[in-house]
Amino acid sequence: MIKVSIIGNGNVASHLINAFTKAPEIEVEQINSRNIKNKLHSDVSIIAVSDGAIAEVSSKINNGLVVHTSGSVPMSELKNNGNKGVFYLLQSFTKNSEVDFSSIPFCIETENKNDLQLLETLAKSIGNKIYFIDSEQRKKIHLAAVFVNNFVNHLYDIGFDICKDNSIPFEILKPLIKETAQKVQSITPNKAQTGPAQRNDQQTIQDHLELLNTHQQKIYTLLTNSIQSSFSNDATIEAGNKL
Amino acid sequence: MIKVSIIGNGNVASHLINAFTKAPEIEVEQINSRNIKNKLHSDVSIIAVSDGAIAEVSSKINNGLVVHTSGSVPMSELKNNGNKGVFYLLQSFTKNSEVDFSSIPFCIETENKNDLQLLETLAKSIGNKIYFIDSEQRKKIHLAAVFVNNFVNHLYDIGFDICKDNSIPFEILKPLIKETAQKVQSITPNKAQTGPAQRNDQQTIQDHLELLNTHQQKIYTLLTNSIQSSFSNDATIEAGNKL
Repeated sequence: MIKVSIIGNGNVASHLINAFTKAPEIEVEQINSRNIKNKLHSDVSIIAVSDGAIAEVSSKINNGLVVHTSGSVPMSELKNNGNKGVFYLLQSFTKNSEVDFSSIPFCIETENKNDLQLLETLAKSIGNKIYFIDSEQRKKIHLAAVFVNNFVNHLYDIGFDICKDNSIPFEILKPLIKETAQKVQSITPNKAQTGPAQRNDQQTIQDHLELLNTHQQKIYTLLTNSIQSSFSNDATIEAGNKL
Repeated sequence: MIKVSIIGNGNVASHLINAFTKAPEIEVEQINSRNIKNKLHSDVSIIAVSDGAIAEVSSKINNGLVVHTSGSVPMSELKNNGNKGVFYLLQSFTKNSEVDFSSIPFCIETENKNDLQLLETLAKSIGNKIYFIDSEQRKKIHLAAVFVNNFVNHLYDIGFDICKDNSIPFEILKPLIKETAQKVQSITPNKAQTGPAQRNDQQTIQDHLELLNTHQQKIYTLLTNSIQSSFSNDATIEAGNKL
């Protein structure tokens, strides 16, 4: 039996509590970050609060292994006197959305080698994709995630706006959005690239620019140029790939 | 029985031939665009060639309904003397990838109302998501598709590069990529937006910029600003959403 305290009441905290509650070998309790007792009676304290509050919250915990769940905060930000680690789940958590923990990568790190096994056992009690990732790598993963999640979602939003402005149901783009994500599960993004930028179709690029507002034009131009420069010294362009 | 000629030998042409071959009510033949006989004996000729060749190829066909498969070319670009239409499949076709036609939106348009039923029957023989879309709307759909497919894939490619440069398996990003596409199947992209830009986390934004090369910084900055301006007058931000 591993005793776990989850400190925080945001999305990550509540999803973790839901998951651990179903794991028979874990005993879990939720603690409000403003209400930490001097002594938590737990083997692992998981701090799931905003990045800026991690240092202060951790300084109040005096026993067991203390870990945070942030992608961008280094392990050294933890200010407890005891053992330290990180328990980062690479997923975007939204309120009221179901989370399938079995598909989520767990990125774990500990200061002491001995604690790594404890954290791995904890991760395996609710998930099955466990990666040993140090603080430097985790920062880079979080950065890459901003591109493939936050920024990608914003491009979906621009697609949504274009549909809305032209009385087209957003519905019509959904299969393409799924297929685009599906394709890079088995081939590299470079191999999957198609479209006017990739095949240097200047006529279509010009036609598209005329249909966009100034703000959208800036994004279109920058990403088009970026695609073209990524292919300019690349002999692997597949002729005939087409959106 | 509908007799269909597919003109072209690219990805769209070969995927269409594969699909129609399995449809019992369709008789399909493939024709090389350089080898069009004066008289094709088909009810529908589907021109699946590069955008720039559509006008010339269509001018050589003298019978039946002639349609092209391009997202960005208007129907009026067809130069046959007879009936005209468009048979646009909103999907990114890559060589050697399996295509599930049942999930692909078919965008159809005809000059004569009478031909619309013929084209609908044809679409229904291999698919089941049929939309009546005029040339103006189709241009906008194609444009939106560039954002949600071509540009999104390029952001995956940047994520791939960040992983590669830091000895992180790209594998680790794949569940997040899938989940990001999955989320907007049921909620709007605006509701699904998370991350440092959306919650105006300037510290993380600055930390991220320091980790990127000049080219990546430009994209990061433009998309971050774009997310922030899309939320600046918006009361629907969900506090606590976090990547």
